[in-house]
Amino acid sequence: MDAQEKRFAIGVDYGTNSARALIVDIIDGVEIATAVADYPTGDLGIILDPLQPTLARQSPRDYVDCFYQAVGEAVKKAYDAPAASSCKFDPNLVAGIGVDTTGSTPIPVDRKGVPLAFYPEFENVPAANAWLWKDHTSVEEADAITARVNELKNGYLDNCGGLYSSEWYWAKIWHCLRENPTVFDAAYSWVELADFIPGFITGETDPNVMPRSVCAAGHKAMWDASRGGLPSADFLASLDPKLVALREHYASTTYSSDHLAGKLRADVAEKTGLVPGIPVAVGAFDCHMGAVGAGVAPGVLVKIMGTSTCDITVQPVDAGLDTIPGVCGVVSGSVLPGYYGIEAGQSAVGDIFRWFERSLAPAKYTNSSSVLGELEKDAALLSPGQSGLVALDWNNGNRTILVDTALTGVIVGNTLSTTAAETYRALIEGTAFGARVIIERIVSRGVDINEVVVCGGIAEKSPTIMQIYADVLNRPLKIARSSQTCALGAALFGATAGGAFSNVLEGQRRLVGYKDAVYRPQEQAVAVYDKLYGVYSRLHDAFGVKNSQVDLYSAMKELIAIRDAVRESKR
Amino acid sequence: MDAQEKRFAIGVDYGTNSARALIVDIIDGVEIATAVADYPTGDLGIILDPLQPTLARQSPRDYVDCFYQAVGEAVKKAYDAPAASSCKFDPNLVAGIGVDTTGSTPIPVDRKGVPLAFYPEFENVPAANAWLWKDHTSVEEADAITARVNELKNGYLDNCGGLYSSEWYWAKIWHCLRENPTVFDAAYSWVELADFIPGFITGETDPNVMPRSVCAAGHKAMWDASRGGLPSADFLASLDPKLVALREHYASTTYSSDHLAGKLRADVAEKTGLVPGIPVAVGAFDCHMGAVGAGVAPGVLVKIMGTSTCDITVQPVDAGLDTIPGVCGVVSGSVLPGYYGIEAGQSAVGDIFRWFERSLAPAKYTNSSSVLGELEKDAALLSPGQSGLVALDWNNGNRTILVDTALTGVIVGNTLSTTAAETYRALIEGTAFGARVIIERIVSRGVDINEVVVCGGIAEKSPTIMQIYADVLNRPLKIARSSQTCALGAALFGATAGGAFSNVLEGQRRLVGYKDAVYRPQEQAVAVYDKLYGVYSRLHDAFGVKNSQVDLYSAMKELIAIRDAVRESKR
Repeated sequence: MDAQEKRFAIGVDYGTNSARALIVDIIDGVEIATAVADYPTGDLGIILDPLQPTLARQSPRDYVDCFYQAVGEAVKKAYDAPAASSCKFDPNLVAGIGVDTTGSTPIPVDRKGVPLAFYPEFENVPAANAWLWKDHTSVEEADAITARVNELKNGYLDNCGGLYSSEWYWAKIWHCLRENPTVFDAAYSWVELADFIPGFITGETDPNVMPRSVCAAGHKAMWDASRGGLPSADFLASLDPKLVALREHYASTTYSSDHLAGKLRADVAEKTGLVPGIPVAVGAFDCHMGAVGAGVAPGVLVKIMGTSTCDITVQPVDAGLDTIPGVCGVVSGSVLPGYYGIEAGQSAVGDIFRWFERSLAPAKYTNSSSVLGELEKDAALLSPGQSGLVALDWNNGNRTILVDTALTGVIVGNTLSTTAAETYRALIEGTAFGARVIIERIVSRGVDINEVVVCGGIAEKSPTIMQIYADVLNRPLKIARSSQTCALGAALFGATAGGAFSNVLEGQRRLVGYKDAVYRPQEQAVAVYDKLYGVYSRLHDAFGVKNSQVDLYSAMKELIAIRDAVRESKR
Repeated sequence: MDAQEKRFAIGVDYGTNSARALIVDIIDGVEIATAVADYPTGDLGIILDPLQPTLARQSPRDYVDCFYQAVGEAVKKAYDAPAASSCKFDPNLVAGIGVDTTGSTPIPVDRKGVPLAFYPEFENVPAANAWLWKDHTSVEEADAITARVNELKNGYLDNCGGLYSSEWYWAKIWHCLRENPTVFDAAYSWVELADFIPGFITGETDPNVMPRSVCAAGHKAMWDASRGGLPSADFLASLDPKLVALREHYASTTYSSDHLAGKLRADVAEKTGLVPGIPVAVGAFDCHMGAVGAGVAPGVLVKIMGTSTCDITVQPVDAGLDTIPGVCGVVSGSVLPGYYGIEAGQSAVGDIFRWFERSLAPAKYTNSSSVLGELEKDAALLSPGQSGLVALDWNNGNRTILVDTALTGVIVGNTLSTTAAETYRALIEGTAFGARVIIERIVSRGVDINEVVVCGGIAEKSPTIMQIYADVLNRPLKIARSSQTCALGAALFGATAGGAFSNVLEGQRRLVGYKDAVYRPQEQAVAVYDKLYGVYSRLHDAFGVKNSQVDLYSAMKELIAIRDAVRESKR
């Protein structure tokens, strides 16, 4: 069958607590079926350790089982898709499958690429399972890697914002080596979840040759084509000589997700109601594929906004790109082939709103069925600057641009009449100011950002929050049409790798759209937020930047002056 | 009848919203009757102006009516006092009456000392009524007075903390001159409420000779015996020549409250069930008499803790005393004759707790009948440092030691798991740190403070708050036995002026006592709070002191380190 005749693509999105499968009609862009499978093991799918609160692991078996369950269910639903869809679903018409996952989520595997956790002796050993992205047990190792890179001045972290994170590949593997050498020694190689799933469903699991994701490798494993790939043996040996072997047990190149990882295995096809041989794309991280599914392009920043955010934009490789201090990652091809993918993020956004709901929202709101909705209604009645409050959005540390988990949230400007709605609005604004810091940093290095696209539940449900963001960022803001941009992006890559689209940009033209509402910056709000951002920036630098020499004496006075002027103008 | 035979004293305490009368047995210290009368005019007794939110005036007529009502009712109740009291009440056995009031609360009066507001043409003119202490319409004038004093380097503010306040006598009068010259011109003189009541009930109302309170004059009108009394005519003329006359319409000396203001007028006696001729003491401010009623003495700081606090200690005049920058007032004899009275204060304490209750306490607490009680219970389960939070207690500005209303509250250290109880405890601790700043400033000038006495409702109801204060202040903390230390202090002065006590110290020995519970600093808590206070102090200086050059970069990191150590030790 010719690729031209194909009609559908499947995207599978591995989130923190569940996997979602999406089947999309690649001609008209209609999402015809979706299904979610929760990871059954541990606490909401996460293996925890009460004695080590920073530990977060997952069962690789869950990943496989949830693939069967989510994809199988989506396929069943696809057969029943409403007649509105122009073509009946048929597994023979599936152009390709794409997979996106959390990361860095490395999994120790044996010589054949089988997860150690698939063996009974390792099944219940947390270190032998997948090390979920938010596992923070490896802070010491991450710091040591950063220190070594700085010492050697080898530039390994120039594209990672200058700091190696405890969430990343080498830090986790090194920590395993130190904490559980038995597991370390039993592992022939470590594969990212984004590589594991495409490998598993195609059977291409040999660690030495499996096509690994440039997105995962470049952002988390210090892989850089221009330097010959992974960090040098000397460098790894300087951390621990035992790490050197892992460099060898890795293919000599990595791929963007428009490339084929392999073809669907017969047994996997059978278990999911599909047919063998369907093309499967190389995997990538969720927010990278989500950005593609939301229309990322030069000049467009996509914010995937949930508990935290992932912020993605691209710059043509031809245009060149300086290093961007504090920005998590710049990797060629990690988002779109031929473009530098630029990744940043805020450690907490929706999580801060939920925290406020859970911890400090008064009965007036919590008695309602939509607590944040009611809070947002009251917050919407306030004008920018009216509360006299400014908040630092660091309740979960700061990922970009400070890359510092040892930071906390701040609220400045409380009076005896400060209300919950004012506080809630200040928290929203704080996250928007945090978003602006990221954009200003990227723009300062010559990358244009003219438009912001937001996706995720908050974007769809909270017009007030979106308007605040448009005003603070002083850029028009659109909402992605799909509620599942990550899975949609994965499907898009699946179809591209399968040949249904000539390239990713064609896929975007076909599948990506926006909601009707566009949030445009409002002149007066922009002016006030510029002033408030000045205060935010000083607080940001005072608490977040060493030796920053910021004078905060004027901060409260300015907030009061802004507040009083706004109140006066409303009289 | 001889003074020796007297058995009772009456204290009348003029608060912000009501007046309270207390009748105490001066032999055994039993408080046999009390009654409260709410000021009927305005909003909770305060005349407001929606167009001028800083305006706060009161009707002098209310003061008089409430004297009749509260004292009359207390006298009636005294007749029914339980048999436990060793002697039946008899108005002929009243040794004296003392009066304490808010301040600076100046009242414009005519040549005879009659308030302008007693005349129909002025009754409804806010400027012709009493200017309540918390009226802040006169910020401009206060700033101009400070500037002039600084320019002339005349030392007029050395004993007022270096800044003249918009709450004080001359600023208010000057503002009246500018804003309502008709009222200003109609006023022959301005008398403090603390002078007005003793004058009114004794008939000694002639502004030129009535014995004015050294407490009111010294703290609010820049009266200084060593400089010859009020500010010089030249100085006042440099503000506005029209102010000079007020200097002339003022007695040449002022008195401490162990002196007689006069004897009770027959008509006032009749209206209250008393007898004519009862000695009436010179008035003073509420917290000064409250401090005496709580046992203030060298080495003892009394905190009168309510919505805000007033902090009072004394130093023997013989011992000498430097100026204390930022401390509201140092006046010889304002508290105890022969001692410098040292007055400081926090702009909000109980008000901050009420704000939290009203604005941010979740349903879990607000559904209870004692919201703050339940919050305190949960806060009590936390250890010092456990929350990782530090709050600046500036929701209503900072009175001592920054003397700056343009400051606001701050909370630093929020995470995604910060709870309401943790926040509440941080607010309590913030007020305790604010209290410590005051003590450290006073101690730094050679005044010992070995013990703290707290009075007010919070002191009696909140053992957790008191223990936190003892730990933060690292001093034993006692609670005054009387719930009405201001009225008790007033009664004590009434009895002293009436000759029943040889001096105020004898009165204190007779009437002042403490609750059984003494809060002692706990070594471990003291150590943690010392560290947290270090962070608080840096925040204090960064936001509150111009050009303070404080590095806040370490603040969050220290809070996290303290938090983690405390949590570790609790495991």
